[in-house]
Amino acid sequence: MKKFAFCLVLLIGAAYAGYVLAEKDSDELMQQAQSQFKPIPTELQEIEGITLTPERIELGKWLYFDPRLSKSWLISCNTCHNLALGGVDLEETSIGHGWAKGPRNAPTVLNSVFNIAQFWDGRAEDLQAQAKGPVQAGVEMNNTPERVEQTLKSIPEYVQRFRKAFPGDSNPVTFDNMADAIEAFEATLLTPGSPFDKYLNGDSQALSKAQKKGLKLFMNKGCSTCHNGINVGGGSYHPFGVVEKPGSKILPEADKGRFVVTETASDKYVFKVPSLRNIELTPPYFHSGQVWDLEQAVAIMGSSQLGIKLSRNETAAIVTFLKTLTGEQPRVEYPILPPHTKGTPLPVTGVSGNVAGH
Amino acid sequence: MKKFAFCLVLLIGAAYAGYVLAEKDSDELMQQAQSQFKPIPTELQEIEGITLTPERIELGKWLYFDPRLSKSWLISCNTCHNLALGGVDLEETSIGHGWAKGPRNAPTVLNSVFNIAQFWDGRAEDLQAQAKGPVQAGVEMNNTPERVEQTLKSIPEYVQRFRKAFPGDSNPVTFDNMADAIEAFEATLLTPGSPFDKYLNGDSQALSKAQKKGLKLFMNKGCSTCHNGINVGGGSYHPFGVVEKPGSKILPEADKGRFVVTETASDKYVFKVPSLRNIELTPPYFHSGQVWDLEQAVAIMGSSQLGIKLSRNETAAIVTFLKTLTGEQPRVEYPILPPHTKGTPLPVTGVSGNVAGH
Repeated sequence: MKKFAFCLVLLIGAAYAGYVLAEKDSDELMQQAQSQFKPIPTELQEIEGITLTPERIELGKWLYFDPRLSKSWLISCNTCHNLALGGVDLEETSIGHGWAKGPRNAPTVLNSVFNIAQFWDGRAEDLQAQAKGPVQAGVEMNNTPERVEQTLKSIPEYVQRFRKAFPGDSNPVTFDNMADAIEAFEATLLTPGSPFDKYLNGDSQALSKAQKKGLKLFMNKGCSTCHNGINVGGGSYHPFGVVEKPGSKILPEADKGRFVVTETASDKYVFKVPSLRNIELTPPYFHSGQVWDLEQAVAIMGSSQLGIKLSRNETAAIVTFLKTLTGEQPRVEYPILPPHTKGTPLPVTGVSGNVAGH
Repeated sequence: MKKFAFCLVLLIGAAYAGYVLAEKDSDELMQQAQSQFKPIPTELQEIEGITLTPERIELGKWLYFDPRLSKSWLISCNTCHNLALGGVDLEETSIGHGWAKGPRNAPTVLNSVFNIAQFWDGRAEDLQAQAKGPVQAGVEMNNTPERVEQTLKSIPEYVQRFRKAFPGDSNPVTFDNMADAIEAFEATLLTPGSPFDKYLNGDSQALSKAQKKGLKLFMNKGCSTCHNGINVGGGSYHPFGVVEKPGSKILPEADKGRFVVTETASDKYVFKVPSLRNIELTPPYFHSGQVWDLEQAVAIMGSSQLGIKLSRNETAAIVTFLKTLTGEQPRVEYPILPPHTKGTPLPVTGVSGNVAGH
């Protein structure tokens, strides 16, 4: 009987020690995560360089959804960055004016305000600069700043809205202000409230055991060396294929990435690390958009960036974690846009011009 | 003094008589209008053959905005019937898969539930039948019923929504039910509250003097012979160019209209009379979409359909009236669509096939 009691004490002690260790382990995992990542804010925050007045945000929403910013009147920002579909178009590379296939996969607009810069090669320093690109790109909206200004100035309700959004500006309806307003709207397109955000905010129950295992692998295998911060990526530039080049389908030779921006040899095949926020919603993956399967994308990252072969279990666990990055999608009322007038340049759907894309 | 008093009485009498006559005139105009037109209802009404449950309407909204009903994942119902732009695309004729130009101008979806039939040639008896057309047309969404069903069945949230929208249906996810749901959503896309509707509801102050003058001309010159009823059109078929053929740009020889549907010689160049509801928002005009100016469109109707040459003043007055047909545009929350899965057929943006359009 004494022997039995002794055994029981030992067992309880071992279980308790296990529990304490697990708790400690769990605390350490959360602390490690909190040191590497930051949650998406649930409220609009001040962002340097962006004026977030309700007037500017609403104007930006109109512009974001208005296909008349394109030469054909068919393509809006929302065509390729569809707010119904995780802020992307789910195409390998975007289709634009004349059904032209652009050179790169459309990155999501969601949370993009937190990226270090915009486009895969970071050639736009912010969303204001970014917004001007696709409007003018021949394979996207194929328009010109002059024609956009003429269009907006010909619509009295737009003129009035620009005046309210840019008070004190003597010439408020400009291409630059269009981009400013779009940037303001886009800065509101955040996806807070994901399970991972809840976890980062201290709720250890927000992630399941399997999701925590994935998070641990994500950090310990080295993924978070690049994919970190508020956007779990989006904060730095790295060469794609740093250890082992993926096939030329996934990393086409012709697209030299950031090299074109900096003209620095070491920037060949360097790209901005994409954010992994809402990643399950935004296939296909990589700048070439050639991989539809998230597990395959993770496996490629393992071999090309980290020089490791992740087991199937590890890949699956990491994907289980990545799915916790899906947050509450922004809900907006679809705008009723003001009608054009006799002074508005009419749509042109014919094909001409050829400029770079994303 | 007596003479003066007499004159005053005469003057007052004349003024009063004029007032009474004007009042009578005004009453008669309203009565004449009320006998020919009907206001758009402000509340959803029961419509024969359409089940308007909240579940079906919401599912229909998802489908209406989902570009994954198209082969390319780029074109949704809303692409050509854009709720931000009066339910149209503002193109001469619609642009579809592969940037193909369709044969006819896209009619507005707004209030279309009140039309006698759908498409310019009336070949679809209702919106349910209509919804199936563009999804399959090679120059529009270029998809097949089988592929649409496979797509919807591969997305668990869609399956669940179809179950709720079609309770008791053992196989709810079908192409037919897709069309039924889209029809239900479209039946909610009404634009009540226009000045003309207020007038029809008895508010004689809802139209200005100039607008009433236009209404009078609209009825007395014969426009309302065809453009009458709740949709101020949309209720009958008539030959385009019944008195005088407009140029072949506006009435292209190759498009024989309803003849293709009925194979009856007298139906050559016969088209459904389009609704004039929200007409100022939906240029360009006619099935060929060749006329951007509403005054020009009215003048053409005068000569081609009524055999009269309207003066510039008359045309302008009629347009002034037509602008009172613009109602409150339906406001909807932009849907957040459920993600596809591994079983979903991926987008195909290559070009093949060629089927008729609107």
